[in-house]
Amino acid sequence: MNSTDSGLAGDGLAVDVIDIVDPSDPRVDDFRDLNSVDRRPDVPALPGGRVGKGLVIAEGVLVAQRMIASRFAPHAFFGVDRRMGELDADLRDPSLRGVPFYRASAEVMAEVIGFHLNRGVLAAARRPVERTVVDVIEHARTVAVLEGVNDHENIGSIFRNAAGLGVDAVVFGAGCADPLYRRCVRVSMGHALLVPFAKSQDWPGDLDVLRDSGFTTVALTPGEGSVPLAGAVSGGKVAFLVGAEGPGLAEHTMRRCDVRARIPMSRGTDSLNVATAAAVAFYERARV
Amino acid sequence: MNSTDSGLAGDGLAVDVIDIVDPSDPRVDDFRDLNSVDRRPDVPALPGGRVGKGLVIAEGVLVAQRMIASRFAPHAFFGVDRRMGELDADLRDPSLRGVPFYRASAEVMAEVIGFHLNRGVLAAARRPVERTVVDVIEHARTVAVLEGVNDHENIGSIFRNAAGLGVDAVVFGAGCADPLYRRCVRVSMGHALLVPFAKSQDWPGDLDVLRDSGFTTVALTPGEGSVPLAGAVSGGKVAFLVGAEGPGLAEHTMRRCDVRARIPMSRGTDSLNVATAAAVAFYERARV
Repeated sequence: MNSTDSGLAGDGLAVDVIDIVDPSDPRVDDFRDLNSVDRRPDVPALPGGRVGKGLVIAEGVLVAQRMIASRFAPHAFFGVDRRMGELDADLRDPSLRGVPFYRASAEVMAEVIGFHLNRGVLAAARRPVERTVVDVIEHARTVAVLEGVNDHENIGSIFRNAAGLGVDAVVFGAGCADPLYRRCVRVSMGHALLVPFAKSQDWPGDLDVLRDSGFTTVALTPGEGSVPLAGAVSGGKVAFLVGAEGPGLAEHTMRRCDVRARIPMSRGTDSLNVATAAAVAFYERARV
Repeated sequence: MNSTDSGLAGDGLAVDVIDIVDPSDPRVDDFRDLNSVDRRPDVPALPGGRVGKGLVIAEGVLVAQRMIASRFAPHAFFGVDRRMGELDADLRDPSLRGVPFYRASAEVMAEVIGFHLNRGVLAAARRPVERTVVDVIEHARTVAVLEGVNDHENIGSIFRNAAGLGVDAVVFGAGCADPLYRRCVRVSMGHALLVPFAKSQDWPGDLDVLRDSGFTTVALTPGEGSVPLAGAVSGGKVAFLVGAEGPGLAEHTMRRCDVRARIPMSRGTDSLNVATAAAVAFYERARV
């Protein structure tokens, strides 16, 4: 197979199409062993260098498209010819000039990444400089603030729900998992790359920053002293705080909030999943 | 290990504690090979007998407790001593008189079921006679109706959300997955065993049954002709229809509904996950 086989390569694409036939080819090392505990490329590099490369990995056509549209500029693609065809219009974007598209068979891809990837295409980006809380809330009217949410799937779902229901930014307080982990990006359908987010460097002190910027801070909690959500959401700027299922928000965090709000629940049932509870709060905010 | 080691057995328990030391013991066959494609016990028996036993399997202390409280009467338990201790009060229920509790080490359990079960205890029940649509909607005021939802995790989440947000019954239209599959029961946190449900035997004809019973049928769809959800939910009896992510509800199904309602979404985003969309609708119904 050479680069003319697709009928597309060279025909106006910005990317450079490079065929990979040897799974050990070092040019696709950024996509190697995606599930490996100690080598996976989407884990942040730590001092000592024993873990990942700190890359951001987009899986599938839709998420790759969203990565191209995001501030996470892909520096390489890896995929089968058919998916390259589905990305044809996107791969003409001038911002991708000279970026390699490593094209391979599904079998070679599977050997490199460590499993068969149904979605057929990957994009990799380096992590840009992180945004600050002040930066992401500047023009925001609705913000989601997470504390102790350490499940990648829940974080991904929260990004998806935030994007769909008009939330402008996400702030990560203490104890949250990495929002740029591959699974999180996938579950978010790429919205983790598009919805502005920042990791708090002063927690829970940043709640004062939110308040000083005019936000009403609403702690979602089924606990005592909470008011029904419908009565807690004002027309001004609102920040919704959610904690992990089980422990919920820390008491000292809730004490810094303006109001505690609950979703009315039936007796004898558990609280909702954290991403579902967040969606309900975002909906309450967006419904009127 | 014998039955006096727990310090509990014989001390007022209704169940019979039986120690299992040999993983090939046929008495625990109802818990064998839980992940096996062609033998797993929670798959309905089909003519020819090549698939499952049609059992319902509860995993973990909380779900086992809910099974005991449900119409799915467990006929056997299988677990480690510690989890038996956590179920102590529940295992004194007179309805469990003579039901075997097969007690084993975590290692023997793992060999029988095919993997290590963190939750440490299982309960098995035979499927009771299925309820009818007429039966489950009789005293209901809010009903969820599913069409084409074939993902066990989504169905489990819908049961959990239904229980938490005051939905009285779930009706399964065409193309839905089995709500009693093990994963569904687990994700529902056992509410699949408690929230009344029925499989429609006349789809979409049963929508007329709902309407004849006084329900307003509300199709959730982002499509044309839909009104915002907040304006579509009346104070009377309401049935919410949801379809699978992607295809959504069939057009001929929506045509039989009283109203099409949408959750207000941001431009350029996807629809919400089906269980999340259902939760938002249930919340809209419960919020006032």
